[in-house]
Amino acid sequence: MEKRVYNFSPGPAVLPLPVLEAAQRDLVSLPGVGISILEISHRSKAFDKIINDAEANLRTLLGIPDNYRVLFMQGGALFQFGVIPMNLLRDSGKSADYVVTGTWSKKAFDEAKLQGLSVNVAWDGKPTNFNRIPKQDELKLNPDAAYVYTASNETIQGVQYQTEPAFGSVPLICDMSSDILSRPIDVSKYGMIFACAQKNAGPAGVTIVIIRDDLIEKSPANLPSLVNYKVFAEGKSLLNTPPTFPIYMVKLVTDWILNDVGGLAKMASLNQSKAKLLYDEIDHSDGFYLPHAEKECRSPMNVPFRLAKTEFEEPFLKQAAERGLCELKGHRSVGGCRASIYNAMPREGVQMLADFMHDFRAKNS
Amino acid sequence: MEKRVYNFSPGPAVLPLPVLEAAQRDLVSLPGVGISILEISHRSKAFDKIINDAEANLRTLLGIPDNYRVLFMQGGALFQFGVIPMNLLRDSGKSADYVVTGTWSKKAFDEAKLQGLSVNVAWDGKPTNFNRIPKQDELKLNPDAAYVYTASNETIQGVQYQTEPAFGSVPLICDMSSDILSRPIDVSKYGMIFACAQKNAGPAGVTIVIIRDDLIEKSPANLPSLVNYKVFAEGKSLLNTPPTFPIYMVKLVTDWILNDVGGLAKMASLNQSKAKLLYDEIDHSDGFYLPHAEKECRSPMNVPFRLAKTEFEEPFLKQAAERGLCELKGHRSVGGCRASIYNAMPREGVQMLADFMHDFRAKNS
Repeated sequence: MEKRVYNFSPGPAVLPLPVLEAAQRDLVSLPGVGISILEISHRSKAFDKIINDAEANLRTLLGIPDNYRVLFMQGGALFQFGVIPMNLLRDSGKSADYVVTGTWSKKAFDEAKLQGLSVNVAWDGKPTNFNRIPKQDELKLNPDAAYVYTASNETIQGVQYQTEPAFGSVPLICDMSSDILSRPIDVSKYGMIFACAQKNAGPAGVTIVIIRDDLIEKSPANLPSLVNYKVFAEGKSLLNTPPTFPIYMVKLVTDWILNDVGGLAKMASLNQSKAKLLYDEIDHSDGFYLPHAEKECRSPMNVPFRLAKTEFEEPFLKQAAERGLCELKGHRSVGGCRASIYNAMPREGVQMLADFMHDFRAKNS
Repeated sequence: MEKRVYNFSPGPAVLPLPVLEAAQRDLVSLPGVGISILEISHRSKAFDKIINDAEANLRTLLGIPDNYRVLFMQGGALFQFGVIPMNLLRDSGKSADYVVTGTWSKKAFDEAKLQGLSVNVAWDGKPTNFNRIPKQDELKLNPDAAYVYTASNETIQGVQYQTEPAFGSVPLICDMSSDILSRPIDVSKYGMIFACAQKNAGPAGVTIVIIRDDLIEKSPANLPSLVNYKVFAEGKSLLNTPPTFPIYMVKLVTDWILNDVGGLAKMASLNQSKAKLLYDEIDHSDGFYLPHAEKECRSPMNVPFRLAKTEFEEPFLKQAAERGLCELKGHRSVGGCRASIYNAMPREGVQMLADFMHDFRAKNS
């Protein structure tokens, strides 16, 4: 086998090696079926079991109540950004509140706005380049909004809600693309949760949507089937051919979290402990490494940081890559470096990065 | 390796074995990259080469002129059914003509209609349960339509346009989901061609869209980005994370057609010869097997047929499955059996089915 490197990419991102190996083993022919998962009919009994198992795993891990549907959609988070207001805002006669904590919640706001719909910015982190999550009393909320929109974790800025926000009776919609399955959550606090799979839950090509029954009923009847939550839910995600292979991978990844890791509390503890390795290195670097996010909002998934001496950034990235520590370049809007250390990033990879950061500082201070 | 069966499923469908084996070999780590195709960043150089190669292969095989864009979208054909009229009809001030030759073109019509848009049925094959393609002079066409919509091959009814229809200056939009890459076509006759991959071009999860530059310009500005052809094309299919693995598979499948098969003329000849094995068996069965489609409209991709004595259908399907000839049950709207024999179905599989049909008839006549 080709030697693998440590992939700190923000997404698509590293997957658990045992999951990749299982997918590889069965790729040409699923045991007991005799055809590949890439060839299987979405109407077959074998695929029925796969999609049901994926949903059951998600229900177990996240404790999803019975009055929520689990949908497997295509199009990624950007698709949801457009479709959420089509379904839940357009015909509501109301406006929607967006809490803008970074690039992704801003994009979601923009996709509603360009449709000419009534949307308000309930808070905007832009003045400090999105380095923190607002406190509850900073939000300008409309108690009669169709929904409040948040992103639990901002991949680019590395800020995360540490506790679940509450918005009274207004439905809370949350983009959990970059931290779903990384920690336990209370689904009942949300009207709708969605997450593209390619960070913590699988490969690119499928988006997990968890939506409360009453919200599904709000979809206007004149929306095309594939952008209509109600029609899509009635079709049980099989309105047309779903992305069969990505759904199969979600099943394997959630099997891994359930059986190999031991659930989301354990997963969260492993993630916190991995993130601490990097944040400690940053905090103890005497200002050599500069964190982007404020301490109380730091994401355990995405760790963006800059080097105080920017001329060291290029050699830092180059020497890291030579050690097999890859995809560490930060997004241009924040600059510097970013280590994405999702569920599947092994602790050894993070330790190796922390050690490299330590050595690099020692040599260049 | 698990024994493989012959999979006559209408889609997702059989893939070329060498393609599956190549995907399997490199699944854990792409050579020279050190991470899996399932983990690769869509902004990486390695993926850039993959998506560019996939497009270049399609351009070579189909002879796509320079004034057409090739897009890789999500959502399957049903998504296109809804999105085409959003982009090309809604703000046009015109109506659109739909040639309804079977289940899929009917669904496309329905998805435009439910949006409250102006759509006309230019021809409807329903009176004879969609067993033929109309002649040009049967079509009721509006010379000022925004577009004419056709499906080149109807998967369920097994009817296919044998020659490319022409509609003057009205843009022709064609769903080629079930016969793209099965024969040479003249792309310049179409305004837009689309095809979900999971029949002839790859696994489920990606849709190939080939669209002429002037049509891209028609997209209304207030459409969400992922349903807006213009915005999607400007983003070069990378507006957000694309379905990386399905696109990689399209690259491998088109490599196979180019290099192993030798192009679309060769592919078409192999397909015709495979289909002849089954149609000959049906035609020479003294009415034991009844074809659905009229002779001059028969699809070489999907071969639906019934057994004159319907009580034999269940044992036919059961005994076929015992021989490893699987997924032969027909769609309920046509009944009986259906053999889908796309590009990747080996001739041996079709020969084995023809032999089985012959033996079954001999034993039960």
